[in-house]
Amino acid sequence: MYDVIIVGAGAAGLTAAIYTCRKKLRTAIISIDVGGQTNLTSHIENYPGTGPMHGMELMQRFQNEAIGFGAELIMGKVNKVDKTEKGFKIGLANGEEYECKALILAYGKVPRSLGIEGEEKFMGRGVTTCVTCDAPLYKNREAVVIGGGNSAVEGALELATIARKVYLVHRRGTFRADEITVEKLKENKNIELVLNSVVAKIVGGKNVESVEVENIATKEKKFFKVDGVFIEIGYVVDTSFVQHLVKVNERKEIIVDERGNTSCPGIFAAGDITPVPYKQTVIAAGDGSKAALECYRWLTGGKGAVLDWS
Amino acid sequence: MYDVIIVGAGAAGLTAAIYTCRKKLRTAIISIDVGGQTNLTSHIENYPGTGPMHGMELMQRFQNEAIGFGAELIMGKVNKVDKTEKGFKIGLANGEEYECKALILAYGKVPRSLGIEGEEKFMGRGVTTCVTCDAPLYKNREAVVIGGGNSAVEGALELATIARKVYLVHRRGTFRADEITVEKLKENKNIELVLNSVVAKIVGGKNVESVEVENIATKEKKFFKVDGVFIEIGYVVDTSFVQHLVKVNERKEIIVDERGNTSCPGIFAAGDITPVPYKQTVIAAGDGSKAALECYRWLTGGKGAVLDWS
Repeated sequence: MYDVIIVGAGAAGLTAAIYTCRKKLRTAIISIDVGGQTNLTSHIENYPGTGPMHGMELMQRFQNEAIGFGAELIMGKVNKVDKTEKGFKIGLANGEEYECKALILAYGKVPRSLGIEGEEKFMGRGVTTCVTCDAPLYKNREAVVIGGGNSAVEGALELATIARKVYLVHRRGTFRADEITVEKLKENKNIELVLNSVVAKIVGGKNVESVEVENIATKEKKFFKVDGVFIEIGYVVDTSFVQHLVKVNERKEIIVDERGNTSCPGIFAAGDITPVPYKQTVIAAGDGSKAALECYRWLTGGKGAVLDWS
Repeated sequence: MYDVIIVGAGAAGLTAAIYTCRKKLRTAIISIDVGGQTNLTSHIENYPGTGPMHGMELMQRFQNEAIGFGAELIMGKVNKVDKTEKGFKIGLANGEEYECKALILAYGKVPRSLGIEGEEKFMGRGVTTCVTCDAPLYKNREAVVIGGGNSAVEGALELATIARKVYLVHRRGTFRADEITVEKLKENKNIELVLNSVVAKIVGGKNVESVEVENIATKEKKFFKVDGVFIEIGYVVDTSFVQHLVKVNERKEIIVDERGNTSCPGIFAAGDITPVPYKQTVIAAGDGSKAALECYRWLTGGKGAVLDWS
């Protein structure tokens, strides 16, 4: 039984963990990655106090601090939240369950999902949504990148400098990325383009071992032996698994008051999963701190939601 | 004519400046100090991403970044804000005036004022409210500390390690500080206790030259030749000079919506001057960023206040 479970390990979630841990609350962070959207910025220079650096480096610092103060980091995808007598039960895609007295939702936007077999099961175990974060793990290995936009094309190029072989699977025959980038793609000998095709399922034991790829036109199926699957098809808000507990707005973002209270006592939210209009690392961090302090106040007998939710 | 004037150079104001400057808005920061309340924390370890350091060092970094991105820093005390046809006119205690299209109020709590002659005039020119910040300027010089609480007593002790002579003027005959601290005070040969007394006025030319001290009981007056006056009598919210323009709550804090809009289009606020319940550096920084981005949105033709202020 944790005092607090924080879902998400971006700027909001990691800052919330720093604050709950310093209040001596037993804290777990559950996340599919560490760093969230900040990782995608290669040169962040508007986070005050640190000077310019890669977003991943900044998030690594946040992580080190959160863990240094005592947070436990659990890698996995939360897909179920239930209210219990004493708090909340959190279910993960891999079947694991955790319990907590209070919950802070800070998992931001999430990578758009393919909705295919094996995708959730192998998330963090070969399936990833961040080339910049995870490419270094695929030195001399084989991987597939899925998508047709700039992030997929640039991701494939970046990955091909490290991996031995990269399949780029795209459901159309042409790429939306800039022509000059597409030229580079075609010239790269480590990249095999698999067009008009989709990955139909991801297969493996403990980790990813292969993908089944289907040509949309011919219906022909192939298996590619790969160690990694990089899904690069954009980001979305996904609050489907908490909408029975918290109110969301028309964009499905979790509504919070100015302290991070949601409509459900004991559930707090911060960062890009809320309607905050400006998506900045320092803003997510500040709101993560508010949600954590409000969570502490609630756990120690303060009143719950401040706004009138009627 | 500045695009934006930011009043206050603490975490909220300096972060706002980083953001407005990066949006290429011509930005001035007007403040009586640099660092605000964060300066008072000798070991800040919950601001994510930097590791532990003195609050002053962290604020120095914020300042360097704001100035590096182009902010102008003007030292002085704002005591007048008027609406003009094109924006706002800002008046300082020293008589200087500046104009701007938009205004961000981020000056937090302010040191409680004595309300005596010379106090505002010499603010930043010998009169200061932060021993930790300014003690190093008084090496081998003479100064007076005013107050009787822990911050005054500890301030006098700190200052006495640097200054040649420190007068500690207190309106009562005993100190509220801990006995052990008061003992140290009495043993210190660089400190002269001036009890049952008040500083009646501060005198000088361009800078502080002396103070007139009056014994409350005997009405006897003395002049002490000093270079510095450290006022250490606590902090208060002071929005008296903007209440004709913006709505305040029962504690006189400036009411803002979740983006930093006040009730007056073109005026934004962030940090401890607002009702934000948790006074943390990272929260002030996050809200400073929001106010700056909302200010940019407003200056570039976005709508003003989002909340219904009726």
